[in-house]
Amino acid sequence: MDFKKAGPEHEGLARPFSNRCACGGVDIHCHVVPQRFPALPSGFSSRGWPSTVADGDCHVTVMIDDKPYRRVNHACYVAEQRIAHMDSTGIAVQALSPMPELFGYWLETGAAATLTRHVNDVIEALVAEGHGRFTGLGGVPLADVDLAIAELQRLMATGHFRGVEIGSNINGAPIGDARFLPFFAEAERLGAAVFVHAVRPAGMERLVGPKQLQQVLGYPSEIGLALASLITGGVLARHPALKIAFSHGGGSFAALLPRLQQGYHVFPDLREQLAEPPTETARRVYVDSLVFDHAMLQRLLPVFGPDRIMLGTDYPFNFQERDPARQVREAFDDEAVRALLIERNARRFLGLEEPSATA
Amino acid sequence: MDFKKAGPEHEGLARPFSNRCACGGVDIHCHVVPQRFPALPSGFSSRGWPSTVADGDCHVTVMIDDKPYRRVNHACYVAEQRIAHMDSTGIAVQALSPMPELFGYWLETGAAATLTRHVNDVIEALVAEGHGRFTGLGGVPLADVDLAIAELQRLMATGHFRGVEIGSNINGAPIGDARFLPFFAEAERLGAAVFVHAVRPAGMERLVGPKQLQQVLGYPSEIGLALASLITGGVLARHPALKIAFSHGGGSFAALLPRLQQGYHVFPDLREQLAEPPTETARRVYVDSLVFDHAMLQRLLPVFGPDRIMLGTDYPFNFQERDPARQVREAFDDEAVRALLIERNARRFLGLEEPSATA
Repeated sequence: MDFKKAGPEHEGLARPFSNRCACGGVDIHCHVVPQRFPALPSGFSSRGWPSTVADGDCHVTVMIDDKPYRRVNHACYVAEQRIAHMDSTGIAVQALSPMPELFGYWLETGAAATLTRHVNDVIEALVAEGHGRFTGLGGVPLADVDLAIAELQRLMATGHFRGVEIGSNINGAPIGDARFLPFFAEAERLGAAVFVHAVRPAGMERLVGPKQLQQVLGYPSEIGLALASLITGGVLARHPALKIAFSHGGGSFAALLPRLQQGYHVFPDLREQLAEPPTETARRVYVDSLVFDHAMLQRLLPVFGPDRIMLGTDYPFNFQERDPARQVREAFDDEAVRALLIERNARRFLGLEEPSATA
Repeated sequence: MDFKKAGPEHEGLARPFSNRCACGGVDIHCHVVPQRFPALPSGFSSRGWPSTVADGDCHVTVMIDDKPYRRVNHACYVAEQRIAHMDSTGIAVQALSPMPELFGYWLETGAAATLTRHVNDVIEALVAEGHGRFTGLGGVPLADVDLAIAELQRLMATGHFRGVEIGSNINGAPIGDARFLPFFAEAERLGAAVFVHAVRPAGMERLVGPKQLQQVLGYPSEIGLALASLITGGVLARHPALKIAFSHGGGSFAALLPRLQQGYHVFPDLREQLAEPPTETARRVYVDSLVFDHAMLQRLLPVFGPDRIMLGTDYPFNFQERDPARQVREAFDDEAVRALLIERNARRFLGLEEPSATA
């Protein structure tokens, strides 16, 4: 794949997308919502099954349980819209992942598998249509670990996916729980990238205010605990080659780590459980840059390491980072660090070839 | 009160404590556990009622529901032990507060009031015995707001308390809930300091590992959400003169704030609820320095402001900061900042007179 050589192979496309991108940024945190969903397979409860209602020319509203869940714009499912945006913000490649509410972990197994497959097919079609501007991080029905492994294997065999997106918890079970070890073992074996996104966060009963606080405060608290659970559950030390990234800069984790490190020194019960100090384990994971603040982004560097932070935007949702590469350039003066964060770390994470230096 | 003039008034004491302290540090986060508890008042359920069992010469084990809750050393209830330690670490004054599990919010009202009063009496006796080396932050039975206000008023009238310690949630209700507004209004009116400590944290179902993770990871997550709830619930903007501090450096809050600030700009529902940007509200509160890490402590400075961070140690528990003033000196070169963090902010928070310059 050579992302910067646009050229003649696009001439036959109905919509010849620009492949010019001076910056070469890779965005590992951006979402897809299908324009339509299939009918609920027969024999399953409709609870939690999504549908969409058209809302003007360029939006749909996702409906869940007869209530509007989120109004989304057509960039969620139209490749051309996405690429125009990418060109304007210096993003060469987006790694497309499902909107987390579409994980469907809470559906009955057969319904979850159907929903996941549909969303993955929509992502795959976008990746094919994008001619190198997209790759996929598909969903897996992780409430059934065997099914999830099978879908992971299928996705990786398509050539359109570089890995998967999973939730921070599976119906309340933290991803550091031992039941998910076989999944992480298989992801490690396949070299699949795993992007962990906050979903249905813990602590909602502590929030006072509008429902958006779920995303605003619940998500970062949740993803911080998810990362911690992979450390304290021993998953990361056990699978050192696992490529795993966390949304929203790892959320609260950077603030939890010093206390976890101190706990490691103070509590024998904790130290016995860990193969290495938590500050070392933290440097095995990737995080995205979606923290909306230079000082916070700078703080992530010593915690995770300069080779572990990647662009993330939450595109095309409202609550997105609109100019992620600029944010990196403003936060860091070092050109080598900038190149790592804007492009190179994500290419390593996703297993994408480096673009040619002369492009 | 002049803490550095020890002098003749101590000569009659059975145990003449040292009042010499070159450093003058003020520790606002350290706990008291009574050596004994009264019998459960008749007519109440024993569930959650604490007792102690002697454990060698210098420890007791706190028992709750017939199970050991925590083994604590006699510095929890012996003034002389505390002061010897304070002298060795440059602490002039400790603000004594209950071990959070002694809040008793989950007890029946009459039992909670009895327990709180007992713990406060033990703190008051220590303060009296300490001749200026201690002040009190008492408990209040906040599950009943009227009772809590009455106890707050009583404590402030004793002269031995400068305020109270409250939990981050009251039986699951975040402290930013409107039901607690009358309490904060009265604390503001009285000029009482309110120290918020994490207790029975949300998100426990996300932890994988030994029970100490409640303190290690649950507490900082919980206190971060508690602080956020006072912002999004409008409590802090409504009571601008309220003196309120948060344990563990505000926990995850420093990592949540940039996202809360961005949410304020993006979501009209959130902006309507807030009287000012969250980054401004954050600078109205105090936090302690109990973060076990220089970089993390440095990060708190721009978030809360140099006039808002105070020493906190969790003395005399295992998971304590053993040399808080040194931590501050190592993290900050500026002598003015050091003086604020080590002593002056806490004196302002607690309403204590400055020590005489010539002491």
